[in-house]
Amino acid sequence: MIIVIKQGSPAEEVRQFAKTFEEKGVQVHFSEGATQTVLGLVGDAAGIDAEALVANHLVEKVVRVQEPYKRANRKFHPDDTCVRVSASTYGERRVGAGHFSVIAGPCSVESHEQILDIAESVKKSGAGFLRGGAFKPRTSPYSFQGLGANGLELLLEAKKQTGLPIVTEIMDLSQLYLFGDVDVIQVGARNMQNFTLLKELGRCGKPILLKRGLSATVSELLMSAEYVMAGGNEDVILCERGIRTFETYTRNTLDISAISALQRQSHLPVVVDPSHAAGLSWMVESLSKAAVAAGADGLIVEVHNNPEKALSDGEQSLTPSAFAGLMQTLKKYVELEGKSFACGK
Amino acid sequence: MIIVIKQGSPAEEVRQFAKTFEEKGVQVHFSEGATQTVLGLVGDAAGIDAEALVANHLVEKVVRVQEPYKRANRKFHPDDTCVRVSASTYGERRVGAGHFSVIAGPCSVESHEQILDIAESVKKSGAGFLRGGAFKPRTSPYSFQGLGANGLELLLEAKKQTGLPIVTEIMDLSQLYLFGDVDVIQVGARNMQNFTLLKELGRCGKPILLKRGLSATVSELLMSAEYVMAGGNEDVILCERGIRTFETYTRNTLDISAISALQRQSHLPVVVDPSHAAGLSWMVESLSKAAVAAGADGLIVEVHNNPEKALSDGEQSLTPSAFAGLMQTLKKYVELEGKSFACGK
Amino acid sequence: MIIVIKQGSPAEEVRQFAKTFEEKGVQVHFSEGATQTVLGLVGDAAGIDAEALVANHLVEKVVRVQEPYKRANRKFHPDDTCVRVSASTYGERRVGAGHFSVIAGPCSVESHEQILDIAESVKKSGAGFLRGGAFKPRTSPYSFQGLGANGLELLLEAKKQTGLPIVTEIMDLSQLYLFGDVDVIQVGARNMQNFTLLKELGRCGKPILLKRGLSATVSELLMSAEYVMAGGNEDVILCERGIRTFETYTRNTLDISAISALQRQSHLPVVVDPSHAAGLSWMVESLSKAAVAAGADGLIVEVHNNPEKALSDGEQSLTPSAFAGLMQTLKKYVELEGKSFACGK
Amino acid sequence: MIIVIKQGSPAEEVRQFAKTFEEKGVQVHFSEGATQTVLGLVGDAAGIDAEALVANHLVEKVVRVQEPYKRANRKFHPDDTCVRVSASTYGERRVGAGHFSVIAGPCSVESHEQILDIAESVKKSGAGFLRGGAFKPRTSPYSFQGLGANGLELLLEAKKQTGLPIVTEIMDLSQLYLFGDVDVIQVGARNMQNFTLLKELGRCGKPILLKRGLSATVSELLMSAEYVMAGGNEDVILCERGIRTFETYTRNTLDISAISALQRQSHLPVVVDPSHAAGLSWMVESLSKAAVAAGADGLIVEVHNNPEKALSDGEQSLTPSAFAGLMQTLKKYVELEGKSFACGK
Repeated sequence: MIIVIKQGSPAEEVRQFAKTFEEKGVQVHFSEGATQTVLGLVGDAAGIDAEALVANHLVEKVVRVQEPYKRANRKFHPDDTCVRVSASTYGERRVGAGHFSVIAGPCSVESHEQILDIAESVKKSGAGFLRGGAFKPRTSPYSFQGLGANGLELLLEAKKQTGLPIVTEIMDLSQLYLFGDVDVIQVGARNMQNFTLLKELGRCGKPILLKRGLSATVSELLMSAEYVMAGGNEDVILCERGIRTFETYTRNTLDISAISALQRQSHLPVVVDPSHAAGLSWMVESLSKAAVAAGADGLIVEVHNNPEKALSDGEQSLTPSAFAGLMQTLKKYVELEGKSFACGK
Repeated sequence: MIIVIKQGSPAEEVRQFAKTFEEKGVQVHFSEGATQTVLGLVGDAAGIDAEALVANHLVEKVVRVQEPYKRANRKFHPDDTCVRVSASTYGERRVGAGHFSVIAGPCSVESHEQILDIAESVKKSGAGFLRGGAFKPRTSPYSFQGLGANGLELLLEAKKQTGLPIVTEIMDLSQLYLFGDVDVIQVGARNMQNFTLLKELGRCGKPILLKRGLSATVSELLMSAEYVMAGGNEDVILCERGIRTFETYTRNTLDISAISALQRQSHLPVVVDPSHAAGLSWMVESLSKAAVAAGADGLIVEVHNNPEKALSDGEQSLTPSAFAGLMQTLKKYVELEGKSFACGK
Repeated sequence: MIIVIKQGSPAEEVRQFAKTFEEKGVQVHFSEGATQTVLGLVGDAAGIDAEALVANHLVEKVVRVQEPYKRANRKFHPDDTCVRVSASTYGERRVGAGHFSVIAGPCSVESHEQILDIAESVKKSGAGFLRGGAFKPRTSPYSFQGLGANGLELLLEAKKQTGLPIVTEIMDLSQLYLFGDVDVIQVGARNMQNFTLLKELGRCGKPILLKRGLSATVSELLMSAEYVMAGGNEDVILCERGIRTFETYTRNTLDISAISALQRQSHLPVVVDPSHAAGLSWMVESLSKAAVAAGADGLIVEVHNNPEKALSDGEQSLTPSAFAGLMQTLKKYVELEGKSFACGK
Repeated sequence: MIIVIKQGSPAEEVRQFAKTFEEKGVQVHFSEGATQTVLGLVGDAAGIDAEALVANHLVEKVVRVQEPYKRANRKFHPDDTCVRVSASTYGERRVGAGHFSVIAGPCSVESHEQILDIAESVKKSGAGFLRGGAFKPRTSPYSFQGLGANGLELLLEAKKQTGLPIVTEIMDLSQLYLFGDVDVIQVGARNMQNFTLLKELGRCGKPILLKRGLSATVSELLMSAEYVMAGGNEDVILCERGIRTFETYTRNTLDISAISALQRQSHLPVVVDPSHAAGLSWMVESLSKAAVAAGADGLIVEVHNNPEKALSDGEQSLTPSAFAGLMQTLKKYVELEGKSFACGK
């Protein structure tokens, strides 16, 4: 950590200030110039709150040199993490470290027939996981809010029938007791900084799919992963799903560079959600290909057997046959990347 | 609601499509041109999901004419709402409808001495409410997380001693049982779309201070208020606290126009948080004056007895004496606006 | 165009208002509901200024149905445009309509030796065009401003020696007379809405590489292309180069979905600048692959023979050997897209 | 300037690297820790390009300690600058250093009658300057482009008749010869980084009103002012006119904190354009009051004698009588700020 001292600060006060760090076991190097004094803090400065320092009247600026996350940090864990999910009789699915996986399914679970139909069809096309929302975060209280516990049961039936592990979103801690048979728990964009929830998920023993918030930086996403990991749960899958910008043509702006940015700083796998990013079903294919080419470890794609009648997000859902075509196309791109494609077969 | 039909759509299909609305009791007006057909839906279109319609293959574009919120909507409730809080022996405090209030206190409750000192001093300066965080949403799991339940108790002691009603943040539904003696429950920016929490707060019988999310639109903030109000709780105070933009000089960008935008569309009171918006204590005064001049119904200001030693947000906290000066300055501006200044005396 | 009339507007006034459109030869359809009246304007509404209408006291909202651009619009020109550049003895280069091209070279032309070295090496690697800045838009007046006219001469020497057509930026109309032998004139992001310049370039008879402004929407970029095309110059290459968002890890945020968005709405070719988008040389490869996979018609990549000593943008420049490797990698991706790779051989 | 060295860099290479700065007359202080080495550059580091340094393979991060602008910097010029404009027989107008001024007039000059009417009325209401666009930057080539040179003549007639000094926008260097009798030359948001134009305006001997770009940071605006000032022209008036964010309710988002941010870092006067910021005439009053309360040195307000028929920006223009009311209201706010209100009498 580097602390730039305000011009004209009394030398004695600065020395006293420096001493407070030394008392915490941190070495302090002085750089005294004609007009500017700079303190370099060397050693374990993790216990020092950079933001709090700014309030000190001697301080002009504080610059962090080290990232504030540890468990999620590639520096302390150079090898890629591979998240493994063992569901059912079909063996293990892997995400990361050279394993590419596709999670597919409807935005919302709507009925027994709907979810089973879709599950069968995405499985046939090679999806590794089934997604589907039982608890739905909707902007309006008057919109369809999901089937709740019943929706979870329908998902579990679909899992039983197809062997596909289930990925579904938790909206609140109070629902956690219902997620016992869910394979991967999704934390939605709006909950990326629900720290109470993240802490508890750090103790739940299940892989977490953590979506980036609409206006969260890459670094904040990693800090949220750190919350989960600090609790002992190392199985975090990061998900880029589009950020909010001034552009209105697409629902959000897919931040394609976040894939490399996350992978360089962290060892955790990164998947991309092209459906929510664009909000336009016709754009899903080109964004999916781009995500693979940019190095993503997987995709999460919305598929609906009847997008026109979907109770939510129909405009961004692929039909099962469009999804089958997408999977055929993607195989070639995943191969070029030298990754194995963890299909469900 | 207006639906623009794609060029070249078969007339018969469009007629069938229109019929589906008529069956829901909504009148449909046709505008058929040489190249473009437009449907105008007249009547109660609230039950129709605009987003879902976009998935229909006949639809080019859907345009809402009416706002999706009702209870928060000024059209259905032309008079300003005044939120009343009766705490202690000191009588009622009011926010909105011509009553201006200042909520002041530290970012975090840190100790008995700290919160009581600050409470006494902000009361003396004319604050109407005491704020203080017991549960703190921090980006890093390694930062101070607040005193929790103990913090709430210290706040209640401060209330007992000073008579100031308490405003403090809830981070999760699981904490609600601890908020029985809290006067106003704050929902933080990161929880603005925690819909499970909002629904429950709609039934809690206490005023809610709802902060705008970092990248939430004015309309989304009103939809979140609608979630609370739909549960029967009409006492919602909206709070503009800065949005996330590309500018990095300030912590966030105070959206001063949101005050008028919210007041025009809604009858709910609007307060402004200049401390979080700027993240710079020296800027609090100019932003506070601007907020009053732009029509705000109140302010929420961070005050700390020793900002340099604050466990969080010290760089944006005023000292008690700076706060006293601010209040003197603000009085003249509130007067110019013709509002009564609900001081705590 | 659809005009939503304010509630409570006098019917007679609305009729008079509608008449003003009919007098301009535009048909008006009425949708009168119990609470809302909507006018649908059918026919050539291009002469009607939507923004101006909003000032009318009868008007609640105006919704455009048709795009405001014509010559750039795919609706009126369904086939992809292929921009052809015939430079030198090496024959024609093509961009768009199935032809993929790479433009490579240094941020700034610095010396005779530098530009000739780089030109030779990027040509060997298969670049179709040589880029290099002679006039440099720099944030600081104290930074290197480019070699100006001398820089242009050095570029033309490099063209003579290698046969590579030249792409270079014009900063102001007053420089245009120097661009006689330049093959493609680049308009930088900061000049995307320099309308005086765009108009003049519409009459210059040379292909234009038009970069998207830092905070320009996809639609505004197309309107700027329209400015050039309205003057008769149909050879416009659009360039996505990253937009400004809240994320600071990368210099800008590459808007990968802009590629599809532009291609769906327009017939013009779209190239991507991964160097400026990321501002990080190590990220150029993954973004380049993603751009190809997302459907880009070409790339513009910064290459410098000694990035550490570059007078500008060294941190985002590839070395010649890294560029050679990139080109080898890209070939496979371009092939998968079924495009021909217009190498310079 | 502080340079953080990459971990594991060979000590000898770092020493050589440090030497290169010493050879430029800059002192280098070493902070060597167990894992991190930091170089502190002390002295005149202005000649060192921070961006270029990042390309060096030894460098992890570069942190500027000093602002890159000098002439615009308050540190080197502690007193407020007062820009003085002497037009006509009515004496001098001042902006800044305690002098508050209002610039008013139509978006576009449309006719002799229009501009003279408006000029007379805004003068009567107390405006200090007349604004009006002769050259108009319009997003669409098919929109009204302004009256050009004729528009300038009409403005000068209005000046002759009313004595009000003229503020009008230059769009391109090629128009400069027409601006001989203009009093203040406005540089629009889209031209804030038209560096060729800025340099030339640095030699024109006239005050410049420099508008902030739609996505320009506060620091970039100051760098653009520095371009003008580096040419010897110290009379720059900065203008905050709203930035582009995700919010769509207003045309742009007025960055009210930019006023204080600019004034703290620079001695130049800061005016605010509430009309373009909001794009909504009904919001101009509340934003104007807020701007005054936040410390602005002036306002630039759009006024039109018939907003419904305005050829551009009618929806954000005040009528002359609304403007008269606004001026009455503002007087009280300007008084509270202790500034003199430079009315035109």
